Amino acid sequence: MLSEAEWEAARERTVETLAEHDFVLTDEEAADVEIADFGFGRLEEVGLELLTYVNTDRYCAKELVMFPGQVCPEHRHPPFDDYPGKQETLRCRAGTVSLYVEGEATSDPAIEPPFNAEYYTVGHEVVLEPGEQYTIDPDTKHWFAAGQEGAIVSEFSSPSYDEKDVFTDPEIRRVPEETY
Amino acid sequence: MLSEAEWEAARERTVETLAEHDFVLTDEEAADVEIADFGFGRLEEVGLELLTYVNTDRYCAKELVMFPGQVCPEHRHPPFDDYPGKQETLRCRAGTVSLYVEGEATSDPAIEPPFNAEYYTVGHEVVLEPGEQYTIDPDTKHWFAAGQEGAIVSEFSSPSYDEKDVFTDPEIRRVPEETY
Repeated sequence: MLSEAEWEAARERTVETLAEHDFVLTDEEAADVEIADFGFGRLEEVGLELLTYVNTDRYCAKELVMFPGQVCPEHRHPPFDDYPGKQETLRCRAGTVSLYVEGEATSDPAIEPPFNAEYYTVGHEVVLEPGEQYTIDPDTKHWFAAGQEGAIVSEFSSPSYDEKDVFTDPEIRRVPEETY
Repeated sequence: MLSEAEWEAARERTVETLAEHDFVLTDEEAADVEIADFGFGRLEEVGLELLTYVNTDRYCAKELVMFPGQVCPEHRHPPFDDYPGKQETLRCRAGTVSLYVEGEATSDPAIEPPFNAEYYTVGHEVVLEPGEQYTIDPDTKHWFAAGQEGAIVSEFSSPSYDEKDVFTDPEIRRVPEETY
């Protein structure tokens, strides 16, 4: 897992990346930036930095920051109880993000899966440049990765229940057991 | 009502304002920017410029651009049929926006209502600077105005049904009968 120093460095880098692109945060938000290493402790390869603006029982909005080449691992948002599963729209704000979803696999994709490649099973590529967006329906497997410049991605969605996310790699823990 | 030239000038100004703050749009989005003059043809005083990123049956996200001093008139989002009414979060991205909601009226508010002042009945002021946000529950009267620099405001919400908005001024038509 990440050390407290690694965690803090990632948080500062996230806030700086957002500031470079004119995204202003309150001090409280800057302190609350979430670092998701998915339990691997290899944040530069597999990870995601998140700021949740709002998550009510009606809707959710987040800013996702990705360092260069960073991968958010394959997962889906299944239905549970009365909830039909999370629908989300990913909108690229800066950099480039390559999104992989169910459908015919793209030959010669922009990004190769990382070290646990056996847990990346969908390969239909959608490359999002700034201003482009894509909506992912509930229970649909997807993963995404930033290009060489990193990326900022706005996520607009139905309510988020991160603890209900199902990752293809059964080792992954989305919600860390310990944070700083 | 606005002339086609006024409409087009407002649209271009909106796209430029967004670009100044690093908000990238596709060409299609830039062409689809919505100009709401609320039927008055006095856009500089009362109006709103909008880009709807997504509006599914689960959630909605928009960018609102306001010219200096521009006022979005008082309205509410009532329930109808099975829909509990729109809940929305307004997040200031640039400039300053003064929001007025139900509750104890603020003495010496930052903004005075415009020409049809009798239709502005709520006066509890919430001033939002960049990075600050406020969530408005359904069926709650509210209006808001940009400060001297104008403003960019992100709106995250449950689905939008603009034609169901109820304005305090019964003359107001949110959805214009004719556009360019």
